[in-house]
Amino acid sequence: MNRNENKIEGSVFLSEDKNSVCIIDQTLLPLEEKIISLKTPKEIYDAIYYLKVRGAPAIGICAGYGMYVLAKQITAEPFIEEFEKIGEYLNSSRPTAVNLSFAVNRMIRVAKENENLSKDALLEKLYSEAKQIHAEDIEMCRSIAEYGLELIKDGDTVLTHCNAGPLATSKYGTGLGTFFLAKEKGIELKAYCDETRPLLQGARLTVYELQNAGIDCTLVCDNMAASLMKQGKINACFVGCDRVALNGDAANKIGTLGVAVLAKHYGVPFYVFCPSSTVDKNCKTGDDIVIEEREKSEIFEMFYEKPVARENTKCYNPAFDVTDHELITAIVTEKGIWRGDESFETFLRRKNIID
Amino acid sequence: MNRNENKIEGSVFLSEDKNSVCIIDQTLLPLEEKIISLKTPKEIYDAIYYLKVRGAPAIGICAGYGMYVLAKQITAEPFIEEFEKIGEYLNSSRPTAVNLSFAVNRMIRVAKENENLSKDALLEKLYSEAKQIHAEDIEMCRSIAEYGLELIKDGDTVLTHCNAGPLATSKYGTGLGTFFLAKEKGIELKAYCDETRPLLQGARLTVYELQNAGIDCTLVCDNMAASLMKQGKINACFVGCDRVALNGDAANKIGTLGVAVLAKHYGVPFYVFCPSSTVDKNCKTGDDIVIEEREKSEIFEMFYEKPVARENTKCYNPAFDVTDHELITAIVTEKGIWRGDESFETFLRRKNIID
Repeated sequence: MNRNENKIEGSVFLSEDKNSVCIIDQTLLPLEEKIISLKTPKEIYDAIYYLKVRGAPAIGICAGYGMYVLAKQITAEPFIEEFEKIGEYLNSSRPTAVNLSFAVNRMIRVAKENENLSKDALLEKLYSEAKQIHAEDIEMCRSIAEYGLELIKDGDTVLTHCNAGPLATSKYGTGLGTFFLAKEKGIELKAYCDETRPLLQGARLTVYELQNAGIDCTLVCDNMAASLMKQGKINACFVGCDRVALNGDAANKIGTLGVAVLAKHYGVPFYVFCPSSTVDKNCKTGDDIVIEEREKSEIFEMFYEKPVARENTKCYNPAFDVTDHELITAIVTEKGIWRGDESFETFLRRKNIID
Repeated sequence: MNRNENKIEGSVFLSEDKNSVCIIDQTLLPLEEKIISLKTPKEIYDAIYYLKVRGAPAIGICAGYGMYVLAKQITAEPFIEEFEKIGEYLNSSRPTAVNLSFAVNRMIRVAKENENLSKDALLEKLYSEAKQIHAEDIEMCRSIAEYGLELIKDGDTVLTHCNAGPLATSKYGTGLGTFFLAKEKGIELKAYCDETRPLLQGARLTVYELQNAGIDCTLVCDNMAASLMKQGKINACFVGCDRVALNGDAANKIGTLGVAVLAKHYGVPFYVFCPSSTVDKNCKTGDDIVIEEREKSEIFEMFYEKPVARENTKCYNPAFDVTDHELITAIVTEKGIWRGDESFETFLRRKNIID
């Protein structure tokens, strides 16, 4: 399957016939680059749940196109009721990534606003909205990457956790965007990449993306970050985020909090790259963020290979943790950088990210 | 193969005919409990290097019996020169674990002191010394576990990193000894066990040992420790050590330093369980401790299964890190507990651990 005229760098796009969402199956990377096609609610739900598509913005784009593709299949009446039901179902696939509900809700709002149009005209509106979600993401990534350049200098070595690159978004990515833009501008950055257990997004995806771009990167296990910082090998930490509260507390892949505490201890700046769509106005602080707990097999079977412990072993497998805003040196959004000299909420208002 | 009359709990013992060292192959646990027999220098070297026998005290016991077994095979003259050569070779298998050189040097010293005896009489002395190393370890474990009881109360939940249980030592273990002794005394402890990448000693060995003893334990990935501490789920951290400097800086399995920084940040006590044989008088501080770097395949191939990144990926794979003494709440030795109210070196002298 080829990407169509809507081809944009990233891991999600609409098929040429507009009847399915296409994604790079991220669970097969880096050994296989396979594009799969999603047509049914269950296929889309499963792709999100099983991390075939992952990364908050990419999930949002997938949900946008997904809602459009599924809207075309609706025959039951009233349309809007069916459409909301589908939205609710997709929404339940991953509770922490805010971009999922953000995209689903945008699509439902457009459907409601245009309820009186013909089905064809309504679908056209939904198509535009999904494309718009995607286009905004590309613009956002570019802008975030530009701001990121302010935080580094030539020759710096940056620690990454999980993956916030093009696969997770579109084009540049958020947390990794600065690496690619720096490369284009002849600024040399090096990376140490946390492998990011249990599902190894750092090893499988971040290293893959940086290698593709010819950026010097070294893979480490998550528990090696402290040793690197103690040795003075890290100039900054770059991470993405899945949901950010109004006070700046940031939920991101499990392990991010630990990196932040270590960075604070060793005086290493810790930067969160945060599309404004990832801010959740309904969360005053990180305590309001629901943390998804995932199946123990992810820890237990080492990425679906030989078990590492007995069948009946209890496992605790939170997918995310919340990094307190006090531990964050700066939050980089596409509308500017928050550096903690005012409350995050004040910053959000000043930048018109919230009302 | 059965353990002989010298049978003592632990993972290392001498065969009945005294011609080989027997170990539980720890790389096969928890799915297979297989005892293998080591007869040649290379077999012993490889067993240590490939972690078939691991844990600082267990390596020491293995090296003691190993030197005895190999001494019996020496026909070249002068005996002592050959014996030292073998010692040097075994010593090079793992540079960080001090018990290895400690045991090897004890055996060489005994050989030198008894150079004038007949070969049979000399071998008898070496046999006694190797048994003595083993017996001292059992005594030490019991004593350390007793001291550990002072640090916990009924109902506490303890975070563990790597493995410092019976498999790593003999009988009770060091870092885990308190769990087993507490269980015997009806004191209930719960454990969260870091899986401990790259080789998963926590998942494969610590969980296995605690489960065998009927102790409530939950497996987590290393990067989940911060989240557990933030949630207030951890009352204390228990770790072993591989080499401890005179100022109390402690080298232990990679990731220990990170746990200590997190514990400090969250106000959780961080305890190092340290047989006095693990103190290295030649290291003033942790900076003097050589950190072993291991093969990238350990990170790369996820315990010898499917690769997680491309063949040419750079990896950094330090086997240990050094936890600064400022981050350690207490160091538990078999001769008492150091709590930081005097220098560690003063404590060591007061307890006659060093002169």
